[in-house]
Amino acid sequence: MGYERFIGQVEDGYAYLTEDELKHAKVKRVKTGDRIEINDLKGNVYLTEVLEITKRYIKCRIIEKIKVEEEDFRITLYQCMPNQLSKIDDIIEGVSQLGVYRFVPVISERSAVKTKDVLKKIKKWEKKALNSIKQCKRLYPVIIENPVKLEDIKSDDEGKFVFYEKEEKRTVKEFLDKKLKNVSVVIGPEGGFTEGEIKILQDKGFIPLTMGKNILRMETAVITGICQIRFLFD
Amino acid sequence: MGYERFIGQVEDGYAYLTEDELKHAKVKRVKTGDRIEINDLKGNVYLTEVLEITKRYIKCRIIEKIKVEEEDFRITLYQCMPNQLSKIDDIIEGVSQLGVYRFVPVISERSAVKTKDVLKKIKKWEKKALNSIKQCKRLYPVIIENPVKLEDIKSDDEGKFVFYEKEEKRTVKEFLDKKLKNVSVVIGPEGGFTEGEIKILQDKGFIPLTMGKNILRMETAVITGICQIRFLFD
Repeated sequence: MGYERFIGQVEDGYAYLTEDELKHAKVKRVKTGDRIEINDLKGNVYLTEVLEITKRYIKCRIIEKIKVEEEDFRITLYQCMPNQLSKIDDIIEGVSQLGVYRFVPVISERSAVKTKDVLKKIKKWEKKALNSIKQCKRLYPVIIENPVKLEDIKSDDEGKFVFYEKEEKRTVKEFLDKKLKNVSVVIGPEGGFTEGEIKILQDKGFIPLTMGKNILRMETAVITGICQIRFLFD
Repeated sequence: MGYERFIGQVEDGYAYLTEDELKHAKVKRVKTGDRIEINDLKGNVYLTEVLEITKRYIKCRIIEKIKVEEEDFRITLYQCMPNQLSKIDDIIEGVSQLGVYRFVPVISERSAVKTKDVLKKIKKWEKKALNSIKQCKRLYPVIIENPVKLEDIKSDDEGKFVFYEKEEKRTVKEFLDKKLKNVSVVIGPEGGFTEGEIKILQDKGFIPLTMGKNILRMETAVITGICQIRFLFD
């Protein structure tokens, strides 16, 4: 199923793995002469051949540039924080694999976490996002933003939606023919939104949608929500 | 957000919680006079009032029968087993919450697990399924079947699909206007299907679909797959 992919830097026509990626390649038992793929995080992926393995780096010869298709739609996920932030640890990978472009942690009324708790987590989430792109072959990891308060959400995207447990009828199906190129979606915390919060979001242009009748646990709800939004693209 | 829901039995006009559900109610600090909902697993849910709490049972007066809507479509999920069966532990809840009717573990070429390993897990999965319906308000838990070999899959459903990593174009969107009432869907193991397996499934009438371009980890793929199939219903 293709070559192992790593994240590296290109300098003077060669590609290098250093630090974490060097360690990672050694764990994966990469040897001189092996072929590996290297993503430079600047929009390029190269097929390379390992030339030299030292304590500080792995040096690779670039064989060719690999054609990669990036999706041409952008989802920004405004995710209200659960009380247990470790639940987010578990969904970042799925969020990234489903092609979410930006992930914005949201502080809402019914979540007990504070901005500073979320800030402490961001490094970890960024690392998870970075690791996941090697597996799912995205070019860039999902961008993890600093947390915002629900009332400070601001989006100019063509589509703006909020999954709301009290919305009974409207589903994404109503918007299938809109050919949207960018969408912002707000997903609530486990306790749901207050009516005041929905009012605030509606004033900002967010349209309430239902995910379906059943009550989903948070991890399932997030993946389901993104999956439904993806239907708006092709 | 409504009353706590338990699973119980109705006898002589009263509803009873026993054994695990009795323990569970005590953990939840249910008291005499409290209102709780009781699902009898025979298609009925009752609003009740707790009359008596003993060591062996909790006895409740039935106040009224609650109207519950069951979904009128049926998804059978044929899930190829991963090498780590504990990954299934983590998805049963989501599978149940997304309204899957039957879950059939499948032994395929690229999974190292054996039928007997899967059989050992079924009790645990059934328990997880049963617990999840209290939260998501389904009437019945997802039915967990005994494992079958891929070549022995047999389905008469109106829609038969298999998510296949080498299928590039066809998505569920092509089938949106079919008004299907029951669908069987096969989701592969982590290593994917062999070409021989896809041939076998196609001969049985299963249509290969793509989930999208990115490679998803198993947990995300299963939820995404079910979510896409649900789009076929209303």
